[in-house]
Amino acid sequence: MSASDRRAREDLIGLIERARQGRGRAIGRLITLVENGASELRELMRLLTPDTGRARVIGLTGAPGVGKSTTVAALITALRAQGHRVAVLAVDPSSPFSGGALLGDRVRMQQHALDTGVFIRSMATRGHLGGLAVAAPQAVRVLDAAGFDTVLVETVGVGQSEVEVAAQVDVTVVLLAPGMGDGIQAAKAGVLEIGDLFVVNKADREGAHSVVRELRNMVALADRGPEDWKPPVLSTTAADGTGIAKLLDELDRFSAHATGSGLQRGRRELRARREVESLVLASLRAALPTHGGAGLEGVATEVAAGRLDPYTAADRVLSASTLG
Amino acid sequence: MSASDRRAREDLIGLIERARQGRGRAIGRLITLVENGASELRELMRLLTPDTGRARVIGLTGAPGVGKSTTVAALITALRAQGHRVAVLAVDPSSPFSGGALLGDRVRMQQHALDTGVFIRSMATRGHLGGLAVAAPQAVRVLDAAGFDTVLVETVGVGQSEVEVAAQVDVTVVLLAPGMGDGIQAAKAGVLEIGDLFVVNKADREGAHSVVRELRNMVALADRGPEDWKPPVLSTTAADGTGIAKLLDELDRFSAHATGSGLQRGRRELRARREVESLVLASLRAALPTHGGAGLEGVATEVAAGRLDPYTAADRVLSASTLG
Repeated sequence: MSASDRRAREDLIGLIERARQGRGRAIGRLITLVENGASELRELMRLLTPDTGRARVIGLTGAPGVGKSTTVAALITALRAQGHRVAVLAVDPSSPFSGGALLGDRVRMQQHALDTGVFIRSMATRGHLGGLAVAAPQAVRVLDAAGFDTVLVETVGVGQSEVEVAAQVDVTVVLLAPGMGDGIQAAKAGVLEIGDLFVVNKADREGAHSVVRELRNMVALADRGPEDWKPPVLSTTAADGTGIAKLLDELDRFSAHATGSGLQRGRRELRARREVESLVLASLRAALPTHGGAGLEGVATEVAAGRLDPYTAADRVLSASTLG
Repeated sequence: MSASDRRAREDLIGLIERARQGRGRAIGRLITLVENGASELRELMRLLTPDTGRARVIGLTGAPGVGKSTTVAALITALRAQGHRVAVLAVDPSSPFSGGALLGDRVRMQQHALDTGVFIRSMATRGHLGGLAVAAPQAVRVLDAAGFDTVLVETVGVGQSEVEVAAQVDVTVVLLAPGMGDGIQAAKAGVLEIGDLFVVNKADREGAHSVVRELRNMVALADRGPEDWKPPVLSTTAADGTGIAKLLDELDRFSAHATGSGLQRGRRELRARREVESLVLASLRAALPTHGGAGLEGVATEVAAGRLDPYTAADRVLSASTLG
């Protein structure tokens, strides 16, 4: 190990030590390493791994406007009252371009800004070679090792991102609100199959009861595979805290079920498998030739021009690599 | 070539021949092959490739409820009036579980059901090893070779799926509507950077003018890299056809710009590169060991239990494979 490597390693160990003491700045710097796919990650994960597995990771998802941030803020307040330390990771996989799109949410959650038992951070994954499948478990590992009891992973939007995030957490809460579109549109969003709990927020608004009723019917009909958990459909008004205590109770009930039935272990193993597979594929991808006649760019020109089919192109790239 | 291989090849050639004649059933069966990642795809793509590159591929995206299906229906009517043959591919990458979630849209577009110059199909990509990055260009290749002048790719939801779909098309139209959330939420969706044209639909509703105004400001500020195309912000009321002619004009203006500036060629080459890379990675992934102590499942158990870090796990899997 060179002197500068040793120095870098000592810096990393110092950062981890301060993160374990709950120092927000150190935790934030570790998350930045994750976000950027920094070269220190291998060492960081090796050092953190023995201290992980304790935090409960709760995913919270739903379309824009359903009140995700308000709900997160209410959950923080309630969990803090129980003495838990809470970290929030606002993942924005929707934009590989513009970092910090979730700044608005962070601002809205400033009521917790001075509480050292709370850590709030938005994270982009655009710099990360393995994408969300690697970045999310790595960030969770940092927060878990830093001693947070609960890690709330908040995501924006509906679509593939939700399904991916659902694979990264222990339990997925799907938020809806009245007036955001009809039942068919909820089904479109593909969230019926991934929610462990459904919450109709803004329950004081007109139409909330019928959304709850319709959702209960849809959840009952959704194909959830062999699981024997029946996802509850709850109502909240996060803005004034109504229904949040009940939501926490149901989260605890889910945790007990998931721990006892082996569901939690199965999900964590699947998550680890995806993470490792993504790391393997990222390193294989880095070994593919890009330039020259059999490089990715060379064959792409031919494929785009209609002179070469994509399978023959893929064969060429593989043969030219050291992997074929 | 065995007798059964020869028979399969003859069947495939027959299907392609009927698809070229515009027979909807044959086109549908080819898309099903794509959707399922069938083994015939290699041969199919080889046979289709020489006849591709002519269709204009238009992506249409936006949150649920903005009126995507109504806009697609209005675009079909207008393009048919110009004598174009139009195919619609409704891609639903949001749910790897439930196929046919877009059935509602297909039903709403039944007014074109008897027109042989129109082909409408929703497509799931859950069966496809290479995912959307492979399935979408393959389906477009089928429709292109079948002689459609325009292929409309409609997607559901906001999020990563949109960004991925934008990479698969020649031009991306982003749809919004008044009353669907404020500007910050539009920015969250990450669509400002991917839209080549923005359309505020339901322009007869209250608040439409201010959405247009706000969007113009946001588009002007968005980081779009080195492109010199300034995305227009249009208004439509797709339900009665208002603004659709103008939208088609702007699409033509974009096409002229993209063809002249090399933008279209660049996008098609990038699309081909992603497609080939995805095929290569899918075949590498298939070569990874899954079982045993150094298989993906074996190491995942250790990683999930906190006994092994993910990087060391990835090293083990690579070493045990024939790829390391």
